[in-house]
Amino acid sequence: MQKGDKFNHTFQVTEDIYQGFINIFNDRNPLHIDTIIAQSKGFASCVMHGNILNGFLSYFIGECLPTKDVIIHRQSILFKKPTYLGDILEFKAEILDFYESVNALEFSFKFIHHERGIVAKGDFQIGIT
Amino acid sequence: MQKGDKFNHTFQVTEDIYQGFINIFNDRNPLHIDTIIAQSKGFASCVMHGNILNGFLSYFIGECLPTKDVIIHRQSILFKKPTYLGDILEFKAEILDFYESVNALEFSFKFIHHERGIVAKGDFQIGIT
Repeated sequence: MQKGDKFNHTFQVTEDIYQGFINIFNDRNPLHIDTIIAQSKGFASCVMHGNILNGFLSYFIGECLPTKDVIIHRQSILFKKPTYLGDILEFKAEILDFYESVNALEFSFKFIHHERGIVAKGDFQIGIT
Repeated sequence: MQKGDKFNHTFQVTEDIYQGFINIFNDRNPLHIDTIIAQSKGFASCVMHGNILNGFLSYFIGECLPTKDVIIHRQSILFKKPTYLGDILEFKAEILDFYESVNALEFSFKFIHHERGIVAKGDFQIGIT
């Protein structure tokens, strides 16, 4: 892996993921489970938990890189647009830098919806173990 | 809510949360599921997925604040120490600032293990909707 390397993956926010996330973490904030309240705040429907996208990030880092010998050092995400149930999100990541002295890689990433554009973006650093 | 307000919560990384996270997001990286490999990398046992802590953060923001009228703008987390199955983590958050013009609050947070100390820390910004 080296600076400039690009990666792509497609994720979908399925009913199983949405309900599973709620069952595990118990975040039943009305914005996520009450369509009327979500619409009263200007959204088309219930807004999916932003941290579902961080779960996708976990999968990408743990399973989709050329090596499995990785560990996350830090990660940041900015939520720009809502994500809704059933959304298919194109995930794009790029290696920004390789810190050879500490064997760490820095990535930028974004989740893109075909109509709404970038719904979230951020960066993370992983160590090669 | 105002600058300086502090919040506490206790979370535990249970078997249900660990297995549930794996079932939902399919991150079966050896570090998380293979004790021998985790130990060969210097850890006491399988390292829990860092994004389980972000799921706890989702619960805190969605369910534990004085208002439910919140939405996450951005969040960052730095992983300092491993988290293991069964760990009980003390979560502490504090309001760093209130941006009245955009109705947004900035928090810092940390997850603390009674022996290992701070296992993760970070910050997030939420909007009051």
